[in-house]
Amino acid sequence: MKKVAVIGIGHVGSTVAYTLITRQLCDTLVLFDKNEALVAAEKNDLTDGQVGRKGQVKVIASDLSQLADCDLVIFSAGDISILQHSNDRFDELKYTRTTVEEWAPKLKAADFKGVLLNITNPCDVITQYFQELTGFPKHRVIGTGTTLDTARMQVAVGQQFNVDPNTVHGYVLGEHGNSQFVAWSSVRLTDQALTEVLTPAQLQAFADGAKQSAWDTIGGKGYTSYGIANQANICAEAILKDTRQILPVSNYSEAANCYVGHPAVVTATGVREDYHVALNDQEQHNWESSAAKVKEMYASLKEPVME
Amino acid sequence: MKKVAVIGIGHVGSTVAYTLITRQLCDTLVLFDKNEALVAAEKNDLTDGQVGRKGQVKVIASDLSQLADCDLVIFSAGDISILQHSNDRFDELKYTRTTVEEWAPKLKAADFKGVLLNITNPCDVITQYFQELTGFPKHRVIGTGTTLDTARMQVAVGQQFNVDPNTVHGYVLGEHGNSQFVAWSSVRLTDQALTEVLTPAQLQAFADGAKQSAWDTIGGKGYTSYGIANQANICAEAILKDTRQILPVSNYSEAANCYVGHPAVVTATGVREDYHVALNDQEQHNWESSAAKVKEMYASLKEPVME
Amino acid sequence: MKKVAVIGIGHVGSTVAYTLITRQLCDTLVLFDKNEALVAAEKNDLTDGQVGRKGQVKVIASDLSQLADCDLVIFSAGDISILQHSNDRFDELKYTRTTVEEWAPKLKAADFKGVLLNITNPCDVITQYFQELTGFPKHRVIGTGTTLDTARMQVAVGQQFNVDPNTVHGYVLGEHGNSQFVAWSSVRLTDQALTEVLTPAQLQAFADGAKQSAWDTIGGKGYTSYGIANQANICAEAILKDTRQILPVSNYSEAANCYVGHPAVVTATGVREDYHVALNDQEQHNWESSAAKVKEMYASLKEPVME
Amino acid sequence: MKKVAVIGIGHVGSTVAYTLITRQLCDTLVLFDKNEALVAAEKNDLTDGQVGRKGQVKVIASDLSQLADCDLVIFSAGDISILQHSNDRFDELKYTRTTVEEWAPKLKAADFKGVLLNITNPCDVITQYFQELTGFPKHRVIGTGTTLDTARMQVAVGQQFNVDPNTVHGYVLGEHGNSQFVAWSSVRLTDQALTEVLTPAQLQAFADGAKQSAWDTIGGKGYTSYGIANQANICAEAILKDTRQILPVSNYSEAANCYVGHPAVVTATGVREDYHVALNDQEQHNWESSAAKVKEMYASLKEPVME
Repeated sequence: MKKVAVIGIGHVGSTVAYTLITRQLCDTLVLFDKNEALVAAEKNDLTDGQVGRKGQVKVIASDLSQLADCDLVIFSAGDISILQHSNDRFDELKYTRTTVEEWAPKLKAADFKGVLLNITNPCDVITQYFQELTGFPKHRVIGTGTTLDTARMQVAVGQQFNVDPNTVHGYVLGEHGNSQFVAWSSVRLTDQALTEVLTPAQLQAFADGAKQSAWDTIGGKGYTSYGIANQANICAEAILKDTRQILPVSNYSEAANCYVGHPAVVTATGVREDYHVALNDQEQHNWESSAAKVKEMYASLKEPVME
Repeated sequence: MKKVAVIGIGHVGSTVAYTLITRQLCDTLVLFDKNEALVAAEKNDLTDGQVGRKGQVKVIASDLSQLADCDLVIFSAGDISILQHSNDRFDELKYTRTTVEEWAPKLKAADFKGVLLNITNPCDVITQYFQELTGFPKHRVIGTGTTLDTARMQVAVGQQFNVDPNTVHGYVLGEHGNSQFVAWSSVRLTDQALTEVLTPAQLQAFADGAKQSAWDTIGGKGYTSYGIANQANICAEAILKDTRQILPVSNYSEAANCYVGHPAVVTATGVREDYHVALNDQEQHNWESSAAKVKEMYASLKEPVME
Repeated sequence: MKKVAVIGIGHVGSTVAYTLITRQLCDTLVLFDKNEALVAAEKNDLTDGQVGRKGQVKVIASDLSQLADCDLVIFSAGDISILQHSNDRFDELKYTRTTVEEWAPKLKAADFKGVLLNITNPCDVITQYFQELTGFPKHRVIGTGTTLDTARMQVAVGQQFNVDPNTVHGYVLGEHGNSQFVAWSSVRLTDQALTEVLTPAQLQAFADGAKQSAWDTIGGKGYTSYGIANQANICAEAILKDTRQILPVSNYSEAANCYVGHPAVVTATGVREDYHVALNDQEQHNWESSAAKVKEMYASLKEPVME
Repeated sequence: MKKVAVIGIGHVGSTVAYTLITRQLCDTLVLFDKNEALVAAEKNDLTDGQVGRKGQVKVIASDLSQLADCDLVIFSAGDISILQHSNDRFDELKYTRTTVEEWAPKLKAADFKGVLLNITNPCDVITQYFQELTGFPKHRVIGTGTTLDTARMQVAVGQQFNVDPNTVHGYVLGEHGNSQFVAWSSVRLTDQALTEVLTPAQLQAFADGAKQSAWDTIGGKGYTSYGIANQANICAEAILKDTRQILPVSNYSEAANCYVGHPAVVTATGVREDYHVALNDQEQHNWESSAAKVKEMYASLKEPVME
């Protein structure tokens, strides 16, 4: 029996939960949110939503004792409305850090032994903060990182060449935020690197297009849900089925000395091995800048807060 | 190639669209909404949400010319916020009738030849109004009717007897609204009718519980999405795969002389045959009252509107 | 993590294994067969057959120590070639009893604690013999019983009325063999019993058609694989996901005092409750005759064998 | 509505058909085989095997008029028993060429306008012969080529590095037969080519292991079914859903002047574009040798046959 908890069931968390059920990735799903009426409502709606389909995922509301034998906790507490009034990730962090401070002790107290997958932004900083406050081994605490950003790059390249995005291999690396970058030297169709086919200007236009598309999505619907729910579920599938897929999750980089999006083998016990993608000079510079941005934000957590 | 359009992509419509994609029920999905930025955003999000999964459903935004060869149009335009301030379905109807008046001519003009599945409330009245304004044959215009209400009854009974809800057979009939009723004499576990096992008071408690659960869902999250999206997709699957499943959709009843939720065979060309469930005296009374309620609301569409 | 063993990987067992993988019902699959080269071959083929699909079920060959923590063992050892030269189930039993005598001690020795699902024929007798020789609680030892026979009846009725077979509810009861019968008084489309719609002669023609169709399948391909693999997987899904579906498996009937196909709630720990379907006089007679046939065959196991 | 025909329903063809149904890739499936009783049996078994699952694929037996509007024909006529007595592909060709000579005129006469996917061996030669005898455009006639060989390489590499085989990218190229080779310079984990990690001797050991594993499978069960059925269905999915996945199918290479396994974009209308994988000197030599082998076998078709 596989048990997953989702903490924070706003647009992202509830779509993550629905997708877990739709893909039949777990047998029991435990929901948490500060809004108890919302938890009760989603429990009903997710249960009603299974009738007529095969399998019955049991949905449980707000029971901390269930965390002890959860295989996976997905953390998606947050408040997207903050970003509707500001695009300063530091502003967002001021709020979301408090959710970590609330939940890290609860996870420890519950003796949670599974993998923690964080979605809440700023993703890399929050993931690292979770690892610090829980003291769980680094390999058991990961974030969705640049998985969605990589997917968007695959869509953009796939549309340009009129091929299945899944046929495009390569990575977006770095912070899940504005300092991320496409490691174009790693992006390939069959065996051909895109850097051999397109000019740097064309590649930059792609990268900009993918980033703009993300902002259009957030601008138009106020948040992203299906894209991130899909990627969180791909990570969840790798964990729950121990597939050992290589995914650009946020995981600890020894070299960068912080959590940051880069490929790692994802297993039932978390990440096993991170991969150092070979980068050209410009990409290496981008990588270091992006890691520096994560570390700067992380450092801000330690500063005295002025109210 | 199978093509589906979803008109109105609020919480319900976009969840319906996401579920169509997740279940791979179509190859092309056309989205419409009065909010063009929302259409662009959902197009992006639904496309991003497919990367890493098998199959690629093409998502198209706001193109009326695509309606001509759609196999199915799902209508989910509405404004749930109306019900947050009122639980008077007549109030809702004042707004939603205008969406029919906008879209019926567009569907006719586009020479749409497929099946129209309506979700917008009040479901039975809006479905009938669509049939009237489009002039499409009655079998090609249906509503989700009491499919979700039936599912909720199955959940309630399944929980009581600790069995899979799918193992509970039977129907909620009538208006998708407050006058609906459970046809308990039709509800069975294996071959045993629940009326043989439970007292009328127990059955009434069940029916009340299921109705309350629906209101708790709406109260807690402001709307229902997963439950109705699942049922709309079950209807869509029956249509797109011509499975000939019997479902309690809103379809025209000769006896009641209106659209109302009761079982019918759902096929690629719409409903083929409606089934007259044998009812006991009390149930027959409820059926007639519920149909009368639908007809009363429908008649209100013809009254001069005083502003 | 869910672990299933399949014992006997001829046409039926290997199709059962492939279906478990295709439907992603387990994480680890352990294969056993007296033919070790076949086990190695199927391990390869089933592993190769997963590339390019989501999920990776680990396939393990011939390791008895794996049985200890299996959630489910599916038993499909047999020799279909016996039935190609004889249609005497007693002949088949002479061989298949020896497979039970071989495997019951192995399952006990391995301290297997899960559910045993038997497919091998004569299904009811072999299932009961397994229960006797293992001493496992009756609820943990079940057979596929009349699940496939019921499915064939649903197909026949569905085709006659041009509706989805899943929309036909009711049961074939008794021995999975020639003495089985359709409990027509339990078979319904929506709420209408077929006995109200069709004459006894028409119903008999249906039953005969379904039985003939089964023999045509065996005659044409030498065995049945997809039909039985589907039903075994539906049982497996109920067990592995604890869905509590009601299925006409072979399970112990207190009234009949033997294993025989009739509906029961199927759970993670086996059957929980058997259902006594209300029968008319003729059906009750058929039920008793069929149970007598099972008991006669079972008694033959105790007779001294003359060689 | 999507319609697929499978011609030749031995172990491979029937497993292909079952997989099409399990993955819900078509709505109608037409079966052909020289053994009419087998067609009737598989029609029954495949129909029975769908009860209790969502969707109902209609199975039709032996009706040539259905070919006109098939989207896809999968050709799997053959006689595996030939290879059990000989491993000379020329022997196999003597028989399988006759199946092409029988079916090419039937497909033309039926005015088939879809994509022809050939599995029958020797795959490249038979595919090319089909194209010649039907006169269909080259892009509409393809074979499964080295898709299964590539999958086996992915499994071997995945097991060595303990990662998901789907995470291994690269190709086996050339004849689907003994002259095939792994284009190791194209095989990557993340962005790292295996030629940078392993010695040529290690790579050769891998390639030999994968080839041996294939022979073990055939040796142990007499044929391969799940591996090839999976790959044929991946090709079918690309065609039926127009996913534009890049797959190493057997398709016409202008450079090699014959059909041979190498990557191409697979679409609803067949292959759109073939990819010339960059090869090192040894690989280029292997490619030319393998293509020469295909051409030699193809030329043998034109020789006068001595009986």
